[in-house]
Amino acid sequence: MERTLINALEENVPSKISGWAEKIRDTKYMIFIILKDRTGSIQVSIDKNEKKELVESLTGVLAHSVLSFEGTMVKSEYVKQGGKEFLPETVDILSSADAIPLDETANIDTRLDYRWIDLRSEKNNLMLNVQTAFVEGMRNFLLEEDFTEIHTPKLIATASESGSDVFEVKYFDRKAYLAQSPQFYKQMAMAAGFERIFEVAPAFRAENSNTNRHTTEFTSFDLEFAYIDSFLDVMNMEERLIVAGLTKVKEKYGEAIKEVFGIDVVIPTIPFPRIKLQDLYQELSKRYGYVIPEHDIGDMNAEAEKLTSRYAMEEFGHEFIFVTDFAKTKRAFYHMRENDVPQGYDLIWKGTEITTGAQREHRYEIIKQQAEEKGLGQDVQFYLEFFKYGCPPHGGFAIGVDRLTMLLLGLPSLKEEMFIFRGPSRLTP
Amino acid sequence: MERTLINALEENVPSKISGWAEKIRDTKYMIFIILKDRTGSIQVSIDKNEKKELVESLTGVLAHSVLSFEGTMVKSEYVKQGGKEFLPETVDILSSADAIPLDETANIDTRLDYRWIDLRSEKNNLMLNVQTAFVEGMRNFLLEEDFTEIHTPKLIATASESGSDVFEVKYFDRKAYLAQSPQFYKQMAMAAGFERIFEVAPAFRAENSNTNRHTTEFTSFDLEFAYIDSFLDVMNMEERLIVAGLTKVKEKYGEAIKEVFGIDVVIPTIPFPRIKLQDLYQELSKRYGYVIPEHDIGDMNAEAEKLTSRYAMEEFGHEFIFVTDFAKTKRAFYHMRENDVPQGYDLIWKGTEITTGAQREHRYEIIKQQAEEKGLGQDVQFYLEFFKYGCPPHGGFAIGVDRLTMLLLGLPSLKEEMFIFRGPSRLTP
Repeated sequence: MERTLINALEENVPSKISGWAEKIRDTKYMIFIILKDRTGSIQVSIDKNEKKELVESLTGVLAHSVLSFEGTMVKSEYVKQGGKEFLPETVDILSSADAIPLDETANIDTRLDYRWIDLRSEKNNLMLNVQTAFVEGMRNFLLEEDFTEIHTPKLIATASESGSDVFEVKYFDRKAYLAQSPQFYKQMAMAAGFERIFEVAPAFRAENSNTNRHTTEFTSFDLEFAYIDSFLDVMNMEERLIVAGLTKVKEKYGEAIKEVFGIDVVIPTIPFPRIKLQDLYQELSKRYGYVIPEHDIGDMNAEAEKLTSRYAMEEFGHEFIFVTDFAKTKRAFYHMRENDVPQGYDLIWKGTEITTGAQREHRYEIIKQQAEEKGLGQDVQFYLEFFKYGCPPHGGFAIGVDRLTMLLLGLPSLKEEMFIFRGPSRLTP
Repeated sequence: MERTLINALEENVPSKISGWAEKIRDTKYMIFIILKDRTGSIQVSIDKNEKKELVESLTGVLAHSVLSFEGTMVKSEYVKQGGKEFLPETVDILSSADAIPLDETANIDTRLDYRWIDLRSEKNNLMLNVQTAFVEGMRNFLLEEDFTEIHTPKLIATASESGSDVFEVKYFDRKAYLAQSPQFYKQMAMAAGFERIFEVAPAFRAENSNTNRHTTEFTSFDLEFAYIDSFLDVMNMEERLIVAGLTKVKEKYGEAIKEVFGIDVVIPTIPFPRIKLQDLYQELSKRYGYVIPEHDIGDMNAEAEKLTSRYAMEEFGHEFIFVTDFAKTKRAFYHMRENDVPQGYDLIWKGTEITTGAQREHRYEIIKQQAEEKGLGQDVQFYLEFFKYGCPPHGGFAIGVDRLTMLLLGLPSLKEEMFIFRGPSRLTP
């Protein structure tokens, strides 16, 4: 018999259902099993007097075993699970589970040790489906906008960008490094005539820090596009991209997110509010008495990001806000500058920076000089070559897919959000 | 003025176009420039007597520079480029190119040194757009089939599967390795209750070999799904997936592929032909006098794959063929066996194996034994744990995205196909 998904069961039609035994309750006269598949769950009710063979088959079977039942769904006013129950004739034990080494009191590290069990919860299952929809919405938007998907190398010959925080790889008889971002290669695609590209791929950071925001490996959603007039075009593209992602999420899972996480998915209005860093400093000082510390002047920090979201909500009723006009000392050498001001921005959402975007410097002589100014001349030599033989003006940005989902669902850390978390002291499972 | 894409130009409407100067021809009375953007190309014609300022601006400007012209498109019976030419009033030199260090006679290694210039060709541009469409078609099919997209870690604690051919990473004060495939983690997703997952991500192989089929880093399209009855379900899913990918390719680029590569994109009929390995050996022997060498018995090799495609075409008129019933000694320990026969297959297309798929062994005691039999008990300990606490029957496969595109377009090697190739002696650009 073909399997029927639980949400597709029809009353009184002989059917087969398969799934996890979420709970097994053995009472005096009845066995009740909550069986769950990807579409929902149902109570399986077994009369111990009537179904002796079934009872025997289920002897010793523990919760989290995977079972398949043939029988019939009937309506029942006594059952909580949507007023339906399943009355089985036969059972097939597809997989017999040992006692689960994890309960609801387990801390995050124990849960990560048994991540595959931890992920079985409704919350975690929904979380990764929400992430899938977010990326699907963004990707479809870009494909409709004529973007090409590229796959750039993660094994690279020189420690890119800064040289620090890069993992070293033994590459036959030499060294290679793991790419911290596809930045240089997505710009190479611009020099290669692609005009509009994106990539969704892992990025690696050898940062030995254990915070909620950091991980040694994460999924980066990167894009770059050419023939822009200024970084305003980049912000305009990002707004539309995020609206497309959130729209898909809301469409598919808006109600479930409300129910499980208690969060309203808000589709933001366009344009997002925009503010210059110096003006923002004044607002934060005036409104909240917050003065940026000396060493962060020209930049943001975690506290400023939090207050900036508060400001955006209070002043504009908006979850998102672009901050522009950072100091050149605080931005990468490849950001274009105009009157010494980097032509880029940070995008803040729910108290956290989710993107740094910019128009890139595409003129060989100038980018070479900006690299040298930051002491990077030698390391980025191969990259500078991309600008020698014609390269259109372009810009782009990156979004951390995991961080985005974490913020959307109000999760406390990336450990909770990622399929499998990686940190300095965590390489398993 | 806003940029107009070349294929959207309207006759006699003042417009701005931007793109690469593919060719610049300076004649006695005229300058002719072939300007190309992502939608096509057009001849820009400049009368040297009438447009003296324009001529001056273009002095010293070489082919491959990036230019922006304002002017008007007119129809002209003298022009090859679709009977249209562009008569500019002004020019903006967006990027001035040095003389290109590459011509049509350059060999593949020189071309790879300057890959960003090499990729500018119509052929290479089309190639990566075809790959984008192939993956788009396959991904959309899976999303409609209720699959969740996951991102599994590439940094792992133990050298997976075989231990050989794995890159070692310096991970703070210990060692990590780069994942050769997401195999273990996509199976973990099954144990985590996801039922249906896929991933498109880089995979790493430290194979010190230089063939057309090998690279140290490639893009793997992986999927896994649960509650299958046998590996036949896996083959059925793969057929439909490939049809979805090829349909999207044909829809978007069928004509262009015919024109540029001289290849017809064929949407295969379902079901694909299927043959057992032993029967195939007999056919190859009978038809082509080919006898499999002793050390390859129970398996395929490159020559057998070529002949198998010939057989599939001659016998079934089909580009694809599934081969089943390999020897257990030639298959991974995690393939399910029935009567000692691995429950999996290879899929052959255009003379090359593009997939190994299988039902996986999901029963703890059996998979543990199969791992030990291959001497892998210790290395895969963490993986065996996934099967202890309940795991549904499942199966899946992987497809190399680069190889797929290479075969579709009849390219001679992965060096030609990949955005940027990586091999034992190539880590740049």
